[in-house]
Amino acid sequence: MLGGACTYIALAASYFTKPQIVAVVGDDFAQADYDLLASRGIDLDGLERVPGKTFFWSGIYSADMNDRETTATDLNVFADFKPKLPESYKTAPYLLLGNIQPALQKSVKDQMTASSLKLTGGDTMNYWISSFRDELLTTIAGWDFLLINDAEARMLSGENNLRKAARAIQKMGPKTLVIKRGEHGAILWHGDTHFMAPGYLLDDVFDPTGAGDCFAGGFMGYLAGSGGHEDPKALRRAVIYGSVMGSFCCERFGVERFRTLTRKEIDGRFQEFQAFTSF
Amino acid sequence: MLGGACTYIALAASYFTKPQIVAVVGDDFAQADYDLLASRGIDLDGLERVPGKTFFWSGIYSADMNDRETTATDLNVFADFKPKLPESYKTAPYLLLGNIQPALQKSVKDQMTASSLKLTGGDTMNYWISSFRDELLTTIAGWDFLLINDAEARMLSGENNLRKAARAIQKMGPKTLVIKRGEHGAILWHGDTHFMAPGYLLDDVFDPTGAGDCFAGGFMGYLAGSGGHEDPKALRRAVIYGSVMGSFCCERFGVERFRTLTRKEIDGRFQEFQAFTSF
Repeated sequence: MLGGACTYIALAASYFTKPQIVAVVGDDFAQADYDLLASRGIDLDGLERVPGKTFFWSGIYSADMNDRETTATDLNVFADFKPKLPESYKTAPYLLLGNIQPALQKSVKDQMTASSLKLTGGDTMNYWISSFRDELLTTIAGWDFLLINDAEARMLSGENNLRKAARAIQKMGPKTLVIKRGEHGAILWHGDTHFMAPGYLLDDVFDPTGAGDCFAGGFMGYLAGSGGHEDPKALRRAVIYGSVMGSFCCERFGVERFRTLTRKEIDGRFQEFQAFTSF
Repeated sequence: MLGGACTYIALAASYFTKPQIVAVVGDDFAQADYDLLASRGIDLDGLERVPGKTFFWSGIYSADMNDRETTATDLNVFADFKPKLPESYKTAPYLLLGNIQPALQKSVKDQMTASSLKLTGGDTMNYWISSFRDELLTTIAGWDFLLINDAEARMLSGENNLRKAARAIQKMGPKTLVIKRGEHGAILWHGDTHFMAPGYLLDDVFDPTGAGDCFAGGFMGYLAGSGGHEDPKALRRAVIYGSVMGSFCCERFGVERFRTLTRKEIDGRFQEFQAFTSF
C-alpha cells in the first residue's frame, strides 16, 4: 500500500499548511494514491514519475509494536533519485529534508533561494550516521533543526546520556533538536532549554509505520502554518502537534487514518495533551 | 550500606511530613544509620530491633542503568517479620504499605483505627503478583491507591496496553493508580482521567537504587503534608514531587543525597518540571 516518509510527512503537514513535495515514484504508482495526496491539497509538481517500480518496504512488528524486522527494502527507482526542485518551490521559506543520503539532502537545500529560507531541518537514520558521517555532519551544519530518535542521537553524539547527547548535537549546527522516544514521547532542545512531551496513550496501537514521519510533518507543518519558528512557545506547540499527528497515524493501517482525519480532531487531541500534562 | 524500601520512603517523605516507620533490623544495624533517620525527624518507635542480621540485598546494574541483576538477597531477620504498630501510630491518617507479602500489608492496615484513616496505598512486586495473587487482590481491594511499575501493571492486569491495564486495576479497588516507567516518568490514573509526568533528565544517573521508593515517599509525603489527597490537582503535584525525590535519589550512591538535600532544592526542581512541561 501507499507509504514512504514523504507521503506521511506531507499528509500530516497538510492539516496546517500547503506542502510541496519532491519525490520519485515508478510507473506502477496508483492514480488513487495521487488522488489521496491531491485531495489533501499537497502540491505534486515535484513528484517525479519515471519508468520502473516504486520504492518498496515491508516488515513485521513485534507483539508490543516497539520493534520491527524488515523483510524487504527494494530501492527500485529510488536508487537513482536526484531530487530536482521545480522553480515554484525554490522560494519556499520552510524546508524539511526527509531521511535520505545526506549529500542529496544538501543538494536540495542548495537549490533553494537562500534569502527566502526561514527554517531548514530534517531527519536522518543510523545508516547515514555510521557510514556517511562526514557527509552528514557537513549537511546538518546548515540546518536549524534536527529530528532523530534517541538511539540515533546516542549514535550521532557518542553520548549515552540524552542531556549530553543533545548538547553535543547542538554544537554540530542545529540549534533546535527534537529527540523522539517512540511511545515515550519526545524532547525538544532549543538553546539552553528543553521541553518534554509524553507519548499519547492509545487504546490500540494498530500500526506504528510512519508515526515518526507524521511527527515531523505535524511539527514542521504547524511552524510553517503559524510562522512561529523563532518563538520558543510555538516550537513547543509544534512538538505537541507532531505528537498528535504521530498518534493518529498509529490508529489505522498505513495512511488510512488520513482519509477521515479532521483538523477539529487534531485540535481536540492537542487539548487532551494540555489536560493530561498540566499541574 | 543503609538501604531498603522503608528507608528510602521515609527519607523522601521526611521533607514534607513527619513519617512514622514500622520495620525490623538486626543487632548489626549501625547507630549512624539510626542517627541519619532520626536527624530527618523520622519517628523510629516502630523500628523493631531483634537478634540476628539485617536484611541484605546486593546487585549489579547494566551500563545504561535500566536493568540490574541481583547477586544476593538475604532475608535474615526480615524472614520472620510480623509488623506491629505502636499505639501512637494507630490513628495516623495516611498509611503507605511498602513492598512485602500482601497478607502482612493487610495486617498493618487492620491494626489502624479505620475511622482515622484518610488515605491508604502501597507498592507490590512481580513475585507477589504471580505467586500470591489472591492475597494481593484481597489486600489492594481496600486501598485508595496503588503504585507499581509498567511491567507489574501489565502482569497484574493481564493487559499489555497501559490504558486497558489501568482500567482493569482500578476495578480491583484502588481508584488512584500510579504506573511508574523508570526513566520515562510516571502516569497517574484518578477516576476517568490520567496525568503524564516525564522522567527528569539527569546529567548522570549515579545509582538508581531506591528511586521508586523515593517516588512513593515524595508522593505520599506531599499528600500527607498538604492534606490534599482528594484534590486531583494535589495528586498531580504529588506525582511531580515523587518524581523530584526519585531524581535526587539517583544523583549519589545509596542514601547519600539525603545527607545534604534541602527543601529549597526540591522546590527548585519542582519548578524545573513546570518549566520543561508547559506549553
